Amino acid sequence: MKLAPPGVPGFRASGVRCGIKRRGPDLALLASDVSAAAAGVFTRSTVVGAPVLLSRERLRTGHARAVIVNSGCSNVAMGARGLRDARRMTELAARAVGCAASEVLVASTGVIGEPLPLDRIAEGVPRAAAALASDGLPRAAAAILTTDTHPKIASTQVRVGGRRVTLSGIAKGSGMIEPDMATLLAFVLTDAAVAPAFLRRLLRGAVDESFNRVTIDGEGSTSDTALLLANGVAGNPILRAPSSPGAAAFARALGEVCGELARAIARDGEGATKLVTVAVRGARSRTDAERAVRRIANSLLVKTALFGGDANWGRILQTLGAGRVRLDLARTRVRLAGVTVFERGASSGPAARARAQARLRAPEVAVEVELGAGRAEARTWTCDLSYDYVRINAEYRT
Amino acid sequence: MKLAPPGVPGFRASGVRCGIKRRGPDLALLASDVSAAAAGVFTRSTVVGAPVLLSRERLRTGHARAVIVNSGCSNVAMGARGLRDARRMTELAARAVGCAASEVLVASTGVIGEPLPLDRIAEGVPRAAAALASDGLPRAAAAILTTDTHPKIASTQVRVGGRRVTLSGIAKGSGMIEPDMATLLAFVLTDAAVAPAFLRRLLRGAVDESFNRVTIDGEGSTSDTALLLANGVAGNPILRAPSSPGAAAFARALGEVCGELARAIARDGEGATKLVTVAVRGARSRTDAERAVRRIANSLLVKTALFGGDANWGRILQTLGAGRVRLDLARTRVRLAGVTVFERGASSGPAARARAQARLRAPEVAVEVELGAGRAEARTWTCDLSYDYVRINAEYRT
Repeated sequence: MKLAPPGVPGFRASGVRCGIKRRGPDLALLASDVSAAAAGVFTRSTVVGAPVLLSRERLRTGHARAVIVNSGCSNVAMGARGLRDARRMTELAARAVGCAASEVLVASTGVIGEPLPLDRIAEGVPRAAAALASDGLPRAAAAILTTDTHPKIASTQVRVGGRRVTLSGIAKGSGMIEPDMATLLAFVLTDAAVAPAFLRRLLRGAVDESFNRVTIDGEGSTSDTALLLANGVAGNPILRAPSSPGAAAFARALGEVCGELARAIARDGEGATKLVTVAVRGARSRTDAERAVRRIANSLLVKTALFGGDANWGRILQTLGAGRVRLDLARTRVRLAGVTVFERGASSGPAARARAQARLRAPEVAVEVELGAGRAEARTWTCDLSYDYVRINAEYRT
Repeated sequence: MKLAPPGVPGFRASGVRCGIKRRGPDLALLASDVSAAAAGVFTRSTVVGAPVLLSRERLRTGHARAVIVNSGCSNVAMGARGLRDARRMTELAARAVGCAASEVLVASTGVIGEPLPLDRIAEGVPRAAAALASDGLPRAAAAILTTDTHPKIASTQVRVGGRRVTLSGIAKGSGMIEPDMATLLAFVLTDAAVAPAFLRRLLRGAVDESFNRVTIDGEGSTSDTALLLANGVAGNPILRAPSSPGAAAFARALGEVCGELARAIARDGEGATKLVTVAVRGARSRTDAERAVRRIANSLLVKTALFGGDANWGRILQTLGAGRVRLDLARTRVRLAGVTVFERGASSGPAARARAQARLRAPEVAVEVELGAGRAEARTWTCDLSYDYVRINAEYRT
């Protein structure tokens, strides 16, 4: 993937501290110089934060000018007050940026059940607006973090309809949020010109193959939000459908940016020592394939074995069985870190196991399973489960 | 629950060491003096051990004389050899006890993918038969353990049709098995006279309300087995249906024995410091209620919070939402260790939280949630997730 400077023509960004978190920047602002086509994908939880409700509603127009984001407080489970506060936050941003509140999207991440400290946000938003800069994306990336250990940014450039367009994204990951939630936030900006309806479709496709393929601990959040803003400053002929010239290249570039952010999130999972790619082939159905990768990626037994560097194919077969994944044991194959450890219904023996254990010490490892029951396949990214996961989640308040 | 001596008239039991595990007894034998009605409930995994296949088939007759069980090797994923070895194990037991091999049931628990050490078992079975004693159940209970920290036995007596009948059960729990599997084994013996078809129905009902209510880490095993043998030595009129005199009392007693064993398993979950009862009310449907208790009981975020003594209702709402459990937030209530910490859509405040945190230090705590969406309810038992869970499962081989 080509690395480009994270600035996207026609967009400015900033990140400042307004005092919601104990330390560090906690307020991010993204703004487009002109109205941008906008699309969003949100949590499917039955418990949803007020910012999600508000942003989802505002996206019906298909356009936006700015996104205001805070970390440290999720504004979830606050009833009518939550919606009022989220709306107020967008009004503050609209005034500072110079647009209508209806053109501002909002996301919040952090503790559940605490009111937003609106006075601090009111003080911070004008400073965030004053700090807006075309190279401000790294500061915005830092301001949306909670327990993540480092910011996540990905950029690429691609030719679309004879014009060079830039895509840059920031994300925060499925670390827990201070300390109540595992939330995924992702914001991707591009100067490509894309019709809103097609933008929605592109984002949905990219999210399905990236953020929806990451699992840290099998949890989902009240606040998961992925937004894509396309301001058209690049001047390419508007992308309206998969058949538009350059649409395939743009979709691929969007997939790269989202994929890189997703892998960065898995690699930075709470307490993670390894990025783990789980790939399943030969499933009877797509549903079986998806269930299989999720069973493996969320299995505590598999994740602790990977932390311990244990080439434990027994736990993989066991969790597939427990998930009632259809498989033909005589045709099942398990490869760990590239080494076949189970094949044709039997262990590949202690030498293969030892080779796999040595390779499992690497920081990026693959778990590959052939089920021998059909032709469907699926893939996901996850991490191992270490003492630090327990520490982070058990001892946060102490 | 009345405690009775664990001996059941007409049954003998033993547990000996034959050298499959690194240390401790690893071969258990249960035998009835006369042919007993027998019923079993087994894992629903798609990867199933040979002993499960064999016992399931033999139970079609509805009768059995003996059960032979080893720990340390699960005899799973061994293909045709696995079935041959399981059959051989029952032949050895049949010869030692003096019955037909078709009257012997078998269970194995331990490492997956290793062959049964049949020579050691062949040497051990005659010793196990010679050691059979009417008070041998505690020794059998010790011989079926793997990572469990102590044996699990429960007994009770009840009057059925004018006769006093005894029920005694042993179980091993969802600790991981050396080191590949989380397996649940349970064997309940009674001198009551029960028709095989009704015995199956009674066992299924008792298991649904006991062992199926335990979850340690959301995993299921290739070897989960619960057997119930009723030899009729008590001389009561045969129980044939729920309307038989004494059937209700017997069912209640069976439920007590299985429930006590199930709670003992949850309390002894790997690395557990707390027995946690999760109860959900006000669900829209039975399915929602079941999903809600399982989401809470299997949530790493909730389990680590309980380990840390953190009264974190946010994580409970979040995991319910992520599981798409239907709830009415304005009518939702969360009680932790008896203290209401969330009610009518809002936190009950820091004082309530502090009270709950103090009470969460107890060795047995309850998580109670009212969803406000209907009338269905469900309950489960689990444990917290500690550093020791990670240690046991990551470092076993090192």
